[in-house]
Amino acid sequence: MGRHFDVELADLKNALLKMGTLTEEAIANSIEALKNRDASLARVIIEGDAAIDALELAIDDTCVDLIALYQPVARDLRLIMTGMKINAELERIADLAVDIAERTIELVDKPHLKPLVDIPKLAALAQSMVRMALDSFVKGDPELAKKVLLSDPEANALRDAVQSELIDDYMVKDGSTAPRAVQLLLIARFLERVCDHATNIAENVIYLARAEVVRHRPIDPE
Amino acid sequence: MGRHFDVELADLKNALLKMGTLTEEAIANSIEALKNRDASLARVIIEGDAAIDALELAIDDTCVDLIALYQPVARDLRLIMTGMKINAELERIADLAVDIAERTIELVDKPHLKPLVDIPKLAALAQSMVRMALDSFVKGDPELAKKVLLSDPEANALRDAVQSELIDDYMVKDGSTAPRAVQLLLIARFLERVCDHATNIAENVIYLARAEVVRHRPIDPE
Repeated sequence: MGRHFDVELADLKNALLKMGTLTEEAIANSIEALKNRDASLARVIIEGDAAIDALELAIDDTCVDLIALYQPVARDLRLIMTGMKINAELERIADLAVDIAERTIELVDKPHLKPLVDIPKLAALAQSMVRMALDSFVKGDPELAKKVLLSDPEANALRDAVQSELIDDYMVKDGSTAPRAVQLLLIARFLERVCDHATNIAENVIYLARAEVVRHRPIDPE
Repeated sequence: MGRHFDVELADLKNALLKMGTLTEEAIANSIEALKNRDASLARVIIEGDAAIDALELAIDDTCVDLIALYQPVARDLRLIMTGMKINAELERIADLAVDIAERTIELVDKPHLKPLVDIPKLAALAQSMVRMALDSFVKGDPELAKKVLLSDPEANALRDAVQSELIDDYMVKDGSTAPRAVQLLLIARFLERVCDHATNIAENVIYLARAEVVRHRPIDPE
């Protein structure tokens, strides 16, 4: 592969970084909108998703064009394939920011339920996992990617705790809280799915670095 | 591309069909388990998911190997790329069957809530959309794929109707139903996501057939 291919590969990485930045912003804003009951910020996220979708398609096309034009093999081919997968994961994270924004708009009309139980904690975890996953990709650092994988059980536990609290302490005790509690429950689930996508990105980084499949296998914490 | 490439491409298509069959079975079984409150069938689905994950990885590797070995361009390259994407969508559908099975196991211990509101209707729609999406891929039939896209609003409407009914007619009126009603609400959401993945498969079929991007764009029903 000549120098031109390397330049195009660097461009691809930059485009993915831009995708990552936009996605991180969308998630951060969706959490801000929820905390501050800010429907207009929620609407900004929903409207901004079209640009992220367009960037995803452009990156996808670039990857296919790079393969067709340069016919890379071995590590270069794997790198482009991994880029395509990470691109798709990022687009799904941005979609979840839209889902959170939509639930937030539903909530804003209704009286406050309570300090959002452990949702802010789960949100902070989700944001840190996305950031670590992206960093691990940029730096090609499988050790950092492993840390993302190790955080996933905590995300599941937090989601389950939020869910139990909303059901047992709110809905069961006072059925009239259900319309609001269900929205919060869904938001907790969306945030946990953000963590899942961060985990998928990290698995791809590890796979690329080691040419060893960690997807769908229990992770050894050592 | 010589005859050998064509043979390998046919093998890839067959592997994807097998993946499709296993996925359809998982979804069908998850709905049966729910309807019949059959925890042991639910466990079969959960245990069977490892085989589907393994097949997904094998197909993914085959796709990368085909590209590295034959360096296809234009339509052949797009076909393999589309195969990889459909493979990933199918794996996610199978994961949703596991999610439904897990919720079903939670429900089986508890008294029946009621005839599952419109969940069987949504389940039937999800199954038919997955089947149509797979058929459209196998036949390379973008018109059939378009029908899948046209069913997606109905899936959303059914999910919203189930959700409203569970909140307003159950949880709000009698908070003690919440632990069961939330499980059903989640199952309705999982089924709607199955429809979303069927839609993604259909979009890829249309994209491949027309080299025209329909992803992320509103669909013209004409």
